[in-house]
Amino acid sequence: MRKIPLLLGALALAGIALTGIAAEAPPPAPNGIAMPEGYKDWRVIAVSHRTDNESLRVILGNDVAIEAARAGNTNPWPDGAIMAKLVFKDATHEAWEAATVPGKFVHAEFMIKDAGKFAETGGWGFARWLGQEQKPYGEDADFVQECFACHTPVADNDYVFTKPIILP
Amino acid sequence: MRKIPLLLGALALAGIALTGIAAEAPPPAPNGIAMPEGYKDWRVIAVSHRTDNESLRVILGNDVAIEAARAGNTNPWPDGAIMAKLVFKDATHEAWEAATVPGKFVHAEFMIKDAGKFAETGGWGFARWLGQEQKPYGEDADFVQECFACHTPVADNDYVFTKPIILP
Repeated sequence: MRKIPLLLGALALAGIALTGIAAEAPPPAPNGIAMPEGYKDWRVIAVSHRTDNESLRVILGNDVAIEAARAGNTNPWPDGAIMAKLVFKDATHEAWEAATVPGKFVHAEFMIKDAGKFAETGGWGFARWLGQEQKPYGEDADFVQECFACHTPVADNDYVFTKPIILP
Repeated sequence: MRKIPLLLGALALAGIALTGIAAEAPPPAPNGIAMPEGYKDWRVIAVSHRTDNESLRVILGNDVAIEAARAGNTNPWPDGAIMAKLVFKDATHEAWEAATVPGKFVHAEFMIKDAGKFAETGGWGFARWLGQEQKPYGEDADFVQECFACHTPVADNDYVFTKPIILP
């Protein structure tokens, strides 16, 4: 008679443990950047869809970035601005075939503006964490060269691909 | 000698006036629903891309909706939940041809959950405002029948197409 309550208790404890693990900060990126706190609660700057790697993206910004985006103060972005790009594999909406919707979560990647600290990479610190496991991307600190090389074609836009949405 | 300061003063006043106009609430929808305040600051629930009408969308939620989405409490969504869908025409990123990015702002549309008040349309109040002008959509209150008909195929998902993103 006591087996079911005990099992439920064990499941509840396991649930608490899993929640605890999920809420812990992941390891820092190989360049020492820690995952910015609270990014899931940041406001939206833009969205995009890449057909070359079948992924949907939403770009969020911290308060400094949102204020800059809304003021059109983005070339350069101010120190302290952080953007988070959340990337999902394409999926098809089961009830609307012409709609692409977020499938598996690919990664969260960040650009952190500090013109002095990150002068060697256009004033931006780069970091990325992979998947639901939030595994830091890159084998060593040199991974940022890959990020920076990809962003160099938009050097005249302060190395940022994203253009903020303009709302009424 | 005083002309330039006067001109600057007039421009400043005009700027204040324009800002004042832009910040004013648009007229309510034909069914009496007022535009929810502060939706631009809401947090993200999902994104999507529709190839049948070439549009990118970001779906935001008020606090009640975000809490429900993160708890998986979305069938049904709780009373008080509001979702805002911001729709943009597709544009191509000038520096990344395979990337579709937000072009012209099409409209902001809302679903407001109140199972009692909106019982005739699945518990949801619908409203939409068009373009940067924020013109209310619909000639009269019957416009909601168009909204509701389109959402009826997802009645088993509480009439909601959007599935919230799941983040680490």
